[in-house]
This record gives sequence, structure tokens and C-alpha cells, in this order.
Amino acid sequence: MKARVIITLKNGVLDPQGKAIEGALKGLGFDGVDAARQGKVIDLDLADTDPAKARERIAAMCDKLLANTVIENYAIDILG
Amino acid sequence: MKARVIITLKNGVLDPQGKAIEGALKGLGFDGVDAARQGKVIDLDLADTDPAKARERIAAMCDKLLANTVIENYAIDILG
Repeated sequence: MKARVIITLKNGVLDPQGKAIEGALKGLGFDGVDAARQGKVIDLDLADTDPAKARERIAAMCDKLLANTVIENYAIDILG
Repeated sequence: MKARVIITLKNGVLDPQGKAIEGALKGLGFDGVDAARQGKVIDLDLADTDPAKARERIAAMCDKLLANTVIENYAIDILG
């Protein structure tokens, strides 16, 4: 079973990497970029076959390792 | 208009960060993780109003700055 975890910074958390992207896009002549925020995506290949159980396990992985839940949100997509 | 760009390593490109995640998950007792690959997600806030034109502009941004198309694939989601 394949799953995708998308980890993004919470609102209000400073994102220097996103700011750098915003500035670089402006420098290249791409106007009208009001904001850019960078996050992480982690694609997992799991032995699980039950989507509900897999989602629960991935949430535990996020809480324990993948995301810093103080400053980051995560979203789990089960791709089947 | 909000858009999300997901940048992932192409198949066959070595991903040491993904391997580290895989190993760390195993170390924490999460079994059955056959593979983990890490990528980037970039959330953009654009002044554009036309989705088709926005997609075209974002593809140009990816080709010029956001992605290294030699080793990375990108996917563009227009979130409206």
C-alpha cells in the first residue's frame, strides 16, 4: 500500500526557505507571487493492506518521527 | 489563487534522506515499511486568476528554479 504524507509549517511559523523562493522567483521576473511556503512530502510503501489501520500507523509515525507537531501540520493520503 | 507543487525524485535516483527515514522508522519499531522517499512541497499564492495560465507559469517556475528536472519530477495542483 502506497501512502503520501505532506508536512507543512503551521501558519505564523517563519519560513525562510519559502521567503528565499519568493525572492528568487521575483528576481527571475515572475511577478504576482504573493507568498511561497516550503514543506516536505514523504512517500511510503507499506506492507499494510487495511487503509484505516495504515492511516493510524502513519499518524503514529508522524507524531513520533516524521513531523514536529509543535510547528508542523501533516496530512496523510492513502494512494492504495 | 493558491497552488501546490510537489517535487519528487525520479525513480532510480538515490535518496539517502528517504533511506534514513526508513531506517529510523524500523528503529522505532514500525515494521513493514518497504520504502520511503522524501520530496518537497511548495505552496504558492499567486495573483493570477486564470487556472490554465497559472499552471503554465508555475511549470515555467519549476523548469527554471523550483525543480531540478534532471533528477526530479514535479506535479502542479491548482487549489483555486
